[in-house]
Amino acid sequence: MPRIVMKFGGTSVADLDRIRNVANRVKRERDAGNEVAVVVSAMSGTTNQLVKWCTDLDPLHDPREYDVVVATGEQVTIGLLAIALQKLGVPARSWAGWQIPIRTDDAHGKARVDSIEGADLIASMQLGQVPVVAGFQGVGPDGRITTLGRGGSDLSAVALAAALKADRCDIYTDVDGVYTTDPRIVPRARKLDRISFEEMLELASVGAKVLQTRSVEMALKQRVRVQVVSSFEDKPGTLVVDEDEIVEKLIVSGIAYSADDAKVTLRRVPDRPGVAARLFGPLAEANVNVDMIVQNIGADGTTDMTFTVNRTDLPRAKEVLEAARDSLGYESINTDPNVVKISVVGIGMRSHAGVASTMFRALSEKGINIQVISTSEIKVSVLVASEYKELAVRALHTAYGLDGPEPDAKTGEEG
Amino acid sequence: MPRIVMKFGGTSVADLDRIRNVANRVKRERDAGNEVAVVVSAMSGTTNQLVKWCTDLDPLHDPREYDVVVATGEQVTIGLLAIALQKLGVPARSWAGWQIPIRTDDAHGKARVDSIEGADLIASMQLGQVPVVAGFQGVGPDGRITTLGRGGSDLSAVALAAALKADRCDIYTDVDGVYTTDPRIVPRARKLDRISFEEMLELASVGAKVLQTRSVEMALKQRVRVQVVSSFEDKPGTLVVDEDEIVEKLIVSGIAYSADDAKVTLRRVPDRPGVAARLFGPLAEANVNVDMIVQNIGADGTTDMTFTVNRTDLPRAKEVLEAARDSLGYESINTDPNVVKISVVGIGMRSHAGVASTMFRALSEKGINIQVISTSEIKVSVLVASEYKELAVRALHTAYGLDGPEPDAKTGEEG
Repeated sequence: MPRIVMKFGGTSVADLDRIRNVANRVKRERDAGNEVAVVVSAMSGTTNQLVKWCTDLDPLHDPREYDVVVATGEQVTIGLLAIALQKLGVPARSWAGWQIPIRTDDAHGKARVDSIEGADLIASMQLGQVPVVAGFQGVGPDGRITTLGRGGSDLSAVALAAALKADRCDIYTDVDGVYTTDPRIVPRARKLDRISFEEMLELASVGAKVLQTRSVEMALKQRVRVQVVSSFEDKPGTLVVDEDEIVEKLIVSGIAYSADDAKVTLRRVPDRPGVAARLFGPLAEANVNVDMIVQNIGADGTTDMTFTVNRTDLPRAKEVLEAARDSLGYESINTDPNVVKISVVGIGMRSHAGVASTMFRALSEKGINIQVISTSEIKVSVLVASEYKELAVRALHTAYGLDGPEPDAKTGEEG
Repeated sequence: MPRIVMKFGGTSVADLDRIRNVANRVKRERDAGNEVAVVVSAMSGTTNQLVKWCTDLDPLHDPREYDVVVATGEQVTIGLLAIALQKLGVPARSWAGWQIPIRTDDAHGKARVDSIEGADLIASMQLGQVPVVAGFQGVGPDGRITTLGRGGSDLSAVALAAALKADRCDIYTDVDGVYTTDPRIVPRARKLDRISFEEMLELASVGAKVLQTRSVEMALKQRVRVQVVSSFEDKPGTLVVDEDEIVEKLIVSGIAYSADDAKVTLRRVPDRPGVAARLFGPLAEANVNVDMIVQNIGADGTTDMTFTVNRTDLPRAKEVLEAARDSLGYESINTDPNVVKISVVGIGMRSHAGVASTMFRALSEKGINIQVISTSEIKVSVLVASEYKELAVRALHTAYGLDGPEPDAKTGEEG
């Protein structure tokens, strides 16, 4: 019998009516002949309230006690959903993290899942019961409650699917799947039937916020087939699977963008050996992540260094660089927060040349200047001025042949 | 070092300010040189909301899932109070029922405490930490969360005090102690410094709703010294202790009343052997508790039977009695919900005669007719018409010499 883990987020269980809807959805999946386990988040708004209480009492609260407080949100939902399922005649039982147990390390507030004991849940499913599992929480080595960090319920679901050797992990969310790009920018964006873990990871990390990055990494590592599917509509979503399961490998599967970056340029840095180490060492020590880097060698023995940092880290980066001015010997710092990173992603790139040049040509034809370029095995990213975001995404979507049919008038309005 | 368990109810932890107040109170007790463990209820209102969600989803909800949902209320409070204590520099740690563990039977929703493992908490206190324990909850034989029933946090506190061999269990509440009678009726009521378990039990069960009956029974059985003390004022409360600790044993310690009863009279029941069994058997089967009973033998071979039942059970009682009319052979049923039970309670009664006659004389002098009388070793109760409630309580309070000094004008207004 196929075994499926279904995960519902906070908006899907926001009130009793939605919890009843979730129960109906679970019942249908079970009636269709599947063994089902469910993972749920807290009712939306609950976690924020609990976090606020902790923070109001003490901004520097003990993360172990924070975990005790916030883990109650999911505990409420599992009990209520179990009651709603039983009301529909579906045998169900709630499971808190410590009852399974979902064992984690002791990094309270952002714990890592070490192991999940699946035996009790499998036995329960084989008796026809639906286990309803609290997402986001586990139990640490000392028996204290831990949480996995915000959005951690996706991670719970994928890890549970691995432990239960489930055939699929369905992540119910407020979008109906993964798109070739953001449909709000490109109305002709198409929903993908399948996408590989690696592509999903690149898309997740550059701004397509459908699945939390850590949960995609876990799915990749544990080879868990994940489906992103709508909580509110009844139609297939996007399957995130191993590359081997994708027959027609698109050269480019999607166009992503991220407006979280800021550009920093150091002008006329003396081009001595070790300058990069002297530059990026202090930034790393200050916990500033550097992403794209480009170095232009000048004719006069100096060089211009350009790189991007997370926009929220920009003040800290400037502070560090100004403190290191003497040792670096640069002439001036230019910073620019008005940049956007556009990425084209596709596993087909590995076996196809010319992906980058298509990108450069398409942007050039629209008069868009590329400020920085970086590439990985399945991704080409460029940094452009923020104002070109929509234009660039649309141009690339068309250039790689991703455009679907024109949406009907109603959908079009959303574009 | 003296060891104290402090218990705070829902109104004492209703919001963050009150939780901070509780933390200060705990700190003071610890600074005074005591080892302290704290038991808390859910923030007031929380449990009602959680119960309502369960009931709205299914009035016949699974009590095991109900327990999962409602136990979260106390879990929130323990985490928040631990944070508030740490903020004051007091080392503190929260403990859910399953973490201690507090082991109960599997009667979900109204579980009985079987055992409490005190070792971890004692070790923690000896390190200077304050354990903050979730009241109202435990863990069943199968590792599932249980709750002790409404008001169960008092029970948790007393049971914990027994397990920790605490010198005292302080129950913080919205009254400042146990009074000789209800101060709203008798402004000259006096707060008792000490009262015996047995007296407290009689007072609790007849309407002085300071301590839950089950928790007094547990305190009596386990010989836990309990102090009822105000959450909002800083002064000594009433100590509930073993009779041996009370030097001056008052003949009457308190006057209690209960307006929860209704009177039932069956007129002209044929006075045959077994009539009482035929009468009270069916009532017991219908779960109707019968309290005071009086039987008047008539001259003509019939008898009038009068007894009291809980007022909410009155419709059911009438139904049962009417169904049994033929087998009982009575002439008519009279019912009267407008009655009140007044009780005088005192361990000194055991060695003093004349307590009942003082009562009858005092009521007679005020023209109050006694409808039913019942007595136990340390209590005399009478049933009178509701309208005499205040008059009767005041007359008895004076007759047994319990009146204190006239309260000042301000307190008098409350009377």
